[in-house]
Amino acid sequence: MERLAISEREHKKRIENVRKTLTKRKLDALYLTSGVSFFYLTGYSYIATERPAALVIPVDGEITFMGPFLEIDHIPLKTRLIKNIKTYYDYPGKKHPIDHFAEFMKDIKLTNKRIGTDNMAGAAGIWGYTGPPITKKLPKTKFILAKDIVADMRLVKSKEEIELIQESAKWANLAHSLLQEYTAPDLWDFDVAIAASHEASMIMKKTLGPNYEPQHWGSHPASAGFRGQVGEMSAIPHSIATKRHMKEGDVLVTGAGADVGGYSCELERTMILGEPTAKQQKYFEAMLKAQEEAFKTLKPSAKCSSVDKATAKVFKKAGFDKLTRHHTGHGLGLEGHEPPWLDIGNEAVLKPGMIVSCEPGIYEPGFGGFRHSDTVLITEDGTEIITYYPRDLESLTIPT
Amino acid sequence: MERLAISEREHKKRIENVRKTLTKRKLDALYLTSGVSFFYLTGYSYIATERPAALVIPVDGEITFMGPFLEIDHIPLKTRLIKNIKTYYDYPGKKHPIDHFAEFMKDIKLTNKRIGTDNMAGAAGIWGYTGPPITKKLPKTKFILAKDIVADMRLVKSKEEIELIQESAKWANLAHSLLQEYTAPDLWDFDVAIAASHEASMIMKKTLGPNYEPQHWGSHPASAGFRGQVGEMSAIPHSIATKRHMKEGDVLVTGAGADVGGYSCELERTMILGEPTAKQQKYFEAMLKAQEEAFKTLKPSAKCSSVDKATAKVFKKAGFDKLTRHHTGHGLGLEGHEPPWLDIGNEAVLKPGMIVSCEPGIYEPGFGGFRHSDTVLITEDGTEIITYYPRDLESLTIPT
Repeated sequence: MERLAISEREHKKRIENVRKTLTKRKLDALYLTSGVSFFYLTGYSYIATERPAALVIPVDGEITFMGPFLEIDHIPLKTRLIKNIKTYYDYPGKKHPIDHFAEFMKDIKLTNKRIGTDNMAGAAGIWGYTGPPITKKLPKTKFILAKDIVADMRLVKSKEEIELIQESAKWANLAHSLLQEYTAPDLWDFDVAIAASHEASMIMKKTLGPNYEPQHWGSHPASAGFRGQVGEMSAIPHSIATKRHMKEGDVLVTGAGADVGGYSCELERTMILGEPTAKQQKYFEAMLKAQEEAFKTLKPSAKCSSVDKATAKVFKKAGFDKLTRHHTGHGLGLEGHEPPWLDIGNEAVLKPGMIVSCEPGIYEPGFGGFRHSDTVLITEDGTEIITYYPRDLESLTIPT
Repeated sequence: MERLAISEREHKKRIENVRKTLTKRKLDALYLTSGVSFFYLTGYSYIATERPAALVIPVDGEITFMGPFLEIDHIPLKTRLIKNIKTYYDYPGKKHPIDHFAEFMKDIKLTNKRIGTDNMAGAAGIWGYTGPPITKKLPKTKFILAKDIVADMRLVKSKEEIELIQESAKWANLAHSLLQEYTAPDLWDFDVAIAASHEASMIMKKTLGPNYEPQHWGSHPASAGFRGQVGEMSAIPHSIATKRHMKEGDVLVTGAGADVGGYSCELERTMILGEPTAKQQKYFEAMLKAQEEAFKTLKPSAKCSSVDKATAKVFKKAGFDKLTRHHTGHGLGLEGHEPPWLDIGNEAVLKPGMIVSCEPGIYEPGFGGFRHSDTVLITEDGTEIITYYPRDLESLTIPT
């Protein structure tokens, strides 16, 4: 059967790796507040709200979850790796959750110890959460910022992670194919996006069968859309929506992905609705050239900065250096953006197993934006481009 | 024309209110890192990523945005209230964004001053961001945690905000009506959810016309769904998805909303697929009674804790006090959850203009969950229940 989620074996290995690092750093436990880290280490998806939660991994002994009571029946259904569940009823409560957490830490005998943490406050603190830092509640506990432990583990993807992202690329490709097929003048971009995402998600579920289960709240299982990058608004890389419908002559910048075991690829394309003008063609070809140059530069032992330099050089030569708005790419996997950053300021070196987006772009305000994004795996001897949707202008021109 | 967004006049008033508080607290500026606050104060939607951004509101003089270059053309399209845009190219850059921010603060003459902030790090720090706190970069600047300034302003909703949430309730109602209409045995819950959300979003756009524009990235304009709360998984309040299809006998817990000017109501219902069993009926009626009791308790000058106590009393009397998993409700508006918390530990008093969810629930592990959520406005002399979808069991029973 197709791999649809990270195995328990791999979660155990990840936890072992955390423990090895704890030992190396003479830490007694890791105290994590990020729901993404909970999922990465145990396979349990936590919806982060104002209610604080923490996962505590001691160097040996059982893992403890501390969080809201409403998760008590959820955790055992999703993971066998969290044996110790300690809860407060709700936020803010008569007694603040952080005071509960301080007591829980006493119960599991982790006071008077050295604790690594991803957050010195002891709580992620979103959606209206306020509270004193846990460091004030446990003055004898030595908390040490160690956000890098899980972050560094996530940098290089395992075989299983790569498989999930490869599987994701298939369904992102389907969603994008349908998006292109359904795109036409006079339609609202959301209409096209939702229709394509619906159809792709249904086919994905029917194909992968009963074992397929999305892991992220709020997203389509497979999705493709425009995020507001329609016509002149395509010149805004982080546009959100446009009021108007699509029309002939529009440059469209798309985005597609699919949730497979909580992982997704990134697939973005520039499409032209109707026959491209000479100016659109010129920008498109420069963008494509920069991306191809980046593909060539991506390889093990190459510096991340070198990829960004390579695309900058192409744009400068074409006379478009004033039209760039962002660097060449970023890591991805569990989150939309992750390190490593393909950025001129990042001297880190690419390693086999890293997966990055490759997406140099140019943008003329008031006219349009031109950016493809592909998901690229660094291999032992080069790269594998995981996303495989056509990149050439002819394939991305939509007849009207 | 229907109100579809907060007016510039109101944004200006909000900024004036910030300035009044700054004056009262003898602060020279407010330094905000939360994208939600940017939107609340200016109407400009910022997609938060690893790239840090800050909005600086001096007690007098121009507002400054400090953030990534890719937002440079975006901001003037969305607001006239940010006149001063200072950018770094990208993250992490040759020079770290925080170093840029420290320089920008010098440029706008806000060093050697007292600055309120929502974040002592000077950056929201999501998605793999790391960096030193701005407090280290500007040792002569006195930063003071003042997360409460914007949070407190958001507690009581203005006339415009109430109008947007009322408008949202219409489209949430449509999405939920379609969700119920499309629900049937043997369907995948995502299928029903996406179909209903698609149809409702399209009708919403056609009805509201060209001026309607969603403000949140990644969500349907109008949506309804189950978030995994199907059958036995409905007993998990924060479930995410289920692998199996819906079947006769399932308890279903739903959720619906709609983005109007960035605001949404909250509408949730418990539905039964097929004829309800006696046990399902018993739980449903207890839940309904608790919600009705809460509606009666909600009024100006009532303590938030009193509402939570009232629902707990109903459940205790029915013998279901072991089946609750969370408090009675929370504020809402721009974010899914906001203060005030309808929680036993919250002695704050309800005021006219506050808008809260009212959603007492009971959950039997392995069997099902029972929760409605309605959006309630506290008025001068009582309440207005903004969401109006039927609450009774007969209306929520889906014949098979």
